[in-house]
Amino acid sequence: VSDGRVGIALAGFGYWGPNLARNVVACQDTKLVAICDRDPDRRALASRLHPSVAVVSDWSEALTAPDVEAAVIATPVASHLALAELAIDAEKHLLIEKPLAATAEDARRLVAAAHARNLALMVDHTFLYTGAVRRLREIVGSGELGELRFFDSTRVSLGLIQSDVSALWDLAVHDLTILEYVTGRWPTAASATGAQHDPSPQPSCAFVTLYYDDTFIAHVNVNWLSPVKIRRTLVCGNQKMAVLDDLESSEKLKVYDAGYDAVSTAAAADEHVGPPPVRRRVGDVWSPLVDDREALLVEIAAFATYVRGGEVPHNDGRSGVAIIEILEAAAVSMALRGEPVEITYR
Amino acid sequence: VSDGRVGIALAGFGYWGPNLARNVVACQDTKLVAICDRDPDRRALASRLHPSVAVVSDWSEALTAPDVEAAVIATPVASHLALAELAIDAEKHLLIEKPLAATAEDARRLVAAAHARNLALMVDHTFLYTGAVRRLREIVGSGELGELRFFDSTRVSLGLIQSDVSALWDLAVHDLTILEYVTGRWPTAASATGAQHDPSPQPSCAFVTLYYDDTFIAHVNVNWLSPVKIRRTLVCGNQKMAVLDDLESSEKLKVYDAGYDAVSTAAAADEHVGPPPVRRRVGDVWSPLVDDREALLVEIAAFATYVRGGEVPHNDGRSGVAIIEILEAAAVSMALRGEPVEITYR
Amino acid sequence: VSDGRVGIALAGFGYWGPNLARNVVACQDTKLVAICDRDPDRRALASRLHPSVAVVSDWSEALTAPDVEAAVIATPVASHLALAELAIDAEKHLLIEKPLAATAEDARRLVAAAHARNLALMVDHTFLYTGAVRRLREIVGSGELGELRFFDSTRVSLGLIQSDVSALWDLAVHDLTILEYVTGRWPTAASATGAQHDPSPQPSCAFVTLYYDDTFIAHVNVNWLSPVKIRRTLVCGNQKMAVLDDLESSEKLKVYDAGYDAVSTAAAADEHVGPPPVRRRVGDVWSPLVDDREALLVEIAAFATYVRGGEVPHNDGRSGVAIIEILEAAAVSMALRGEPVEITYR
Amino acid sequence: VSDGRVGIALAGFGYWGPNLARNVVACQDTKLVAICDRDPDRRALASRLHPSVAVVSDWSEALTAPDVEAAVIATPVASHLALAELAIDAEKHLLIEKPLAATAEDARRLVAAAHARNLALMVDHTFLYTGAVRRLREIVGSGELGELRFFDSTRVSLGLIQSDVSALWDLAVHDLTILEYVTGRWPTAASATGAQHDPSPQPSCAFVTLYYDDTFIAHVNVNWLSPVKIRRTLVCGNQKMAVLDDLESSEKLKVYDAGYDAVSTAAAADEHVGPPPVRRRVGDVWSPLVDDREALLVEIAAFATYVRGGEVPHNDGRSGVAIIEILEAAAVSMALRGEPVEITYR
Repeated sequence: VSDGRVGIALAGFGYWGPNLARNVVACQDTKLVAICDRDPDRRALASRLHPSVAVVSDWSEALTAPDVEAAVIATPVASHLALAELAIDAEKHLLIEKPLAATAEDARRLVAAAHARNLALMVDHTFLYTGAVRRLREIVGSGELGELRFFDSTRVSLGLIQSDVSALWDLAVHDLTILEYVTGRWPTAASATGAQHDPSPQPSCAFVTLYYDDTFIAHVNVNWLSPVKIRRTLVCGNQKMAVLDDLESSEKLKVYDAGYDAVSTAAAADEHVGPPPVRRRVGDVWSPLVDDREALLVEIAAFATYVRGGEVPHNDGRSGVAIIEILEAAAVSMALRGEPVEITYR
Repeated sequence: VSDGRVGIALAGFGYWGPNLARNVVACQDTKLVAICDRDPDRRALASRLHPSVAVVSDWSEALTAPDVEAAVIATPVASHLALAELAIDAEKHLLIEKPLAATAEDARRLVAAAHARNLALMVDHTFLYTGAVRRLREIVGSGELGELRFFDSTRVSLGLIQSDVSALWDLAVHDLTILEYVTGRWPTAASATGAQHDPSPQPSCAFVTLYYDDTFIAHVNVNWLSPVKIRRTLVCGNQKMAVLDDLESSEKLKVYDAGYDAVSTAAAADEHVGPPPVRRRVGDVWSPLVDDREALLVEIAAFATYVRGGEVPHNDGRSGVAIIEILEAAAVSMALRGEPVEITYR
Repeated sequence: VSDGRVGIALAGFGYWGPNLARNVVACQDTKLVAICDRDPDRRALASRLHPSVAVVSDWSEALTAPDVEAAVIATPVASHLALAELAIDAEKHLLIEKPLAATAEDARRLVAAAHARNLALMVDHTFLYTGAVRRLREIVGSGELGELRFFDSTRVSLGLIQSDVSALWDLAVHDLTILEYVTGRWPTAASATGAQHDPSPQPSCAFVTLYYDDTFIAHVNVNWLSPVKIRRTLVCGNQKMAVLDDLESSEKLKVYDAGYDAVSTAAAADEHVGPPPVRRRVGDVWSPLVDDREALLVEIAAFATYVRGGEVPHNDGRSGVAIIEILEAAAVSMALRGEPVEITYR
Repeated sequence: VSDGRVGIALAGFGYWGPNLARNVVACQDTKLVAICDRDPDRRALASRLHPSVAVVSDWSEALTAPDVEAAVIATPVASHLALAELAIDAEKHLLIEKPLAATAEDARRLVAAAHARNLALMVDHTFLYTGAVRRLREIVGSGELGELRFFDSTRVSLGLIQSDVSALWDLAVHDLTILEYVTGRWPTAASATGAQHDPSPQPSCAFVTLYYDDTFIAHVNVNWLSPVKIRRTLVCGNQKMAVLDDLESSEKLKVYDAGYDAVSTAAAADEHVGPPPVRRRVGDVWSPLVDDREALLVEIAAFATYVRGGEVPHNDGRSGVAIIEILEAAAVSMALRGEPVEITYR
């Protein structure tokens, strides 16, 4: 575009689309050019909020609007593949809502197609752009927590029930991306349980345990039917422990100088039963300052950088595929009432 | 005893014993007669706190102190069977720390022995005597929540690691008793995962899913190595939902008039994908007043009533056996990385 | 305007102006036509966020943009009078940031001028449009709390220090409007204390007590230099009590069925000292559902209604004058270290 | 006494007396010898909880019990003087509930009498022995917060209304002792407001501002009729700020690396109005570990040390007198609706 900003066409102006649109407008490196939605009421809303943007019902028309260089897709998962393929055919870069596609196979197909055309493909894993998650990754990466023991994440609320995906696919995808981003590790097997409760057509809660090639373990609890909203993640090492509470307005991230120290076996010699010879260590709590910019704004700026040939983001297409490979293993396990299922990454 | 109070001999003055002793003293229906502990330091403390009570190192001696009618056992689990059998031989009624015994078989043996001598046998499942849990049971029992969908309980902290039991046996036992007490239902199968992390000699975290003969599902998350302390239980029905937060100093129990209502299919006809035709219903929140007496005091009064031939408590020996049967199934499943295991109640 | 929406010119695109602009855009009854700011950086931002709106540096120019029917003034207090008078001269209706003007005299002058031209004049007391405050007013009005005893409001944070007004004028103005809106009562005298601390040029904290013609009492604590953010208001009657916590993401409003009941004097006869013959009554807590729409959006819709000749809002110009009359009395008292000062309403 | 422990006679087994008794028993340096209460029900309770202690209705009898070296007085304030004088006549050291006496004059009389007999006299200002308050004093004393600006403390709840003292005397006494202990400063003038509401015979709420010989300012808000319980103290310096929340089960104390930094006047030159040329600095939050032993136990050990000729505690009689001198000035101010009153220390 003449002013150097990346021109964007947006597909889907439902729940998340308006947030994407607002941040594409707010970002200095992008420009909102077109919005596409099938629903006339949503189009009317889009026109009122963005009077200078082309609002259309046909995706092909949106893609051919002047100056469009990239497509942002925020429609139901089932439609990701078709809409993204149209955009790839039109040589547009892509930012696609999570999960990337309805199956790992579809996701791999998209990655291959974008790669063949040399187009950027990024999955909207927004949480990777929150200040708290980024800071947590730094802290874990620095070794300050010591050797990691477990990751335990809860994401429950009275949620926006989806028709075409389960709570596992809709919610746990966030925790899985945070898990990998923060620890840098990929699980080897999944055991998942859950249940479907009306009015959700798909399983509405899921309890997922992920195994690794050592004793590190991860657990994710997601639920669409919880009366209270909880978004809390524990990451514990053998030196320190961190807690991320995304609902706190301040002090979202805390690091606990806590754990257990061994005591001399002499002192503990006679204790055949009872507590083992350890001393609980509870120390100071430290809440590091975190960047409080809106994550979606930071992510869209990263997308613009990627489109312009800059840094490849962590949440590129390949990462999106691997996350779906975990989800698929968990879904198989859930159908088998928790029987462990190996995860295969292709 | 002359004054009508039940005379008590207490075995174990470690972590929990002092609380039992203090409440046996405070209860109008019981009298603390003897305290037994192997450790001279703990005996010295017992003597200072209870100068008028016999403090001994030999359990048989404690049992033969004048006026002893009942024994309270608060020693490591491995010793429950032997100490309880001594008490039964001495014709003493029994209040035993949870879990009742190290195995379901041992527990059944104790129940049979007590029954043969016509002695009261109660397991210290203290949470059944908190005002909040009792009120929650009433609310669920009244049908106010509608048909139950799920129970999800988290009990984690930087805890008192035990040598002879895992976090599953030490912590989840609380959630399982609350689960059964509140819902009146027994699960049919368990899928459990977890891991052992130093310095705990046994598994230090456990994630347990319990299946029932319908779509109701229960999940329990316990962990000895959590930096934050959480004790929260969600019980959700298709009409209303309840949350019990045991760490709140007030408003421990809340009932949410929340859920989803179906909307007419006409209005929803055209929505092939996206949210299903439901409307989220978020209404008032109600926090009923709950009895805030110390649970242990209420429980000890109930034990005295039971000893005197009054009401048989919910947490009698048979209940203690069944809880261990669930724990044993969960432990087997955990060793199999979540493979579901049927629960057999004998 | 042709489409029936009220065309708006906005003065000031600093801290609050962008929120006003965003909501004028979102409101179905208003249309953002022009934005005016002296600062070129702010104008550049306004242009990017609102590409279809005229962005100018001269207020007269903004007022003469096509279709402008009303002016929204969100500049520093010292400039309210002059900018508003220009708008009144141009026959524009007015929505002015709080406090309405720098002095009660100026405020009265504006009210008279607007009245003379038959123009709507509304003060942006946003909190009167939050669901929680509106619900609280209903509850108090229904008599459910009984006879009111006290109102106690705290509004502290590490705030946006202003150069031309004190924390009293900038923050307490919110609590005073809520106080009057909820109770329907106007205080007769003020005792205020406070202090000025660098880097605030004006008093940075204020502790205001308001007296009434009976024993009802109100207290307001505001502070720009608090490390923690608190926005909590207690309203207590002799039957029930209500608490509004504006920082809660849910359950912002709670009603406590709590208080004291007298006990028979017979039972209390012998107690010469010690607690009086009353019994503390602690009952259920009820958190009524409140409208969670953005308050500013609701307020702008109310402004449009007012402009179109509909309902006169509670926060009209006269109300804005009276609030400043309280602020002026409090400021005099503060300079006298708490000496009580009568409040005169003209 | 033969075993070296300080023998204690306790007057008053009402609300606080049982806590004192329990801790006198738990403390290794003290021994509970006698309990005195006029009420037969309270005596019966005392006998059940402390079967080996002499329980009497006559204070003189308690004082003459064998081995009594010190008296602890936990009766209504009006009776402190008489009971304490009896104890002084009997050559007993004294630990007296706060406030020390009903008037500063009475308090000075007690201090003089104890001093004449060379007896220890300590006021039970329990909060000075909490780990959080002690740590806060260290932090302030280290200069880490910089130059102090303000202290703001709130202590409200649905409380234990007293007949013979107001909420000011019963509750604010805690905040005043913490204020002096933490800052090491004594105020020069008080402005207080408040009101009396049934069923409290005395003023049930008080809002006290304390002035010093510089711009440091302190504010205390106490209330017996609040539906929610709040116990929060802010201490802010020009470098950092601290918050003490006594109701938190962990992280009671937090230090905020927050404040404002001046920015260069060049950058700020053109800003005639609007925010002053400062930059808000929000940094990490640090929650130092604090001693979590029961404060009363620590205090009783300090009393025993004092009795045995060791360290004179901060809360000695003279300190108790000065606190009452502040309370008396505040009470005068409150009767004058906030008119400032100078505080005279004798």
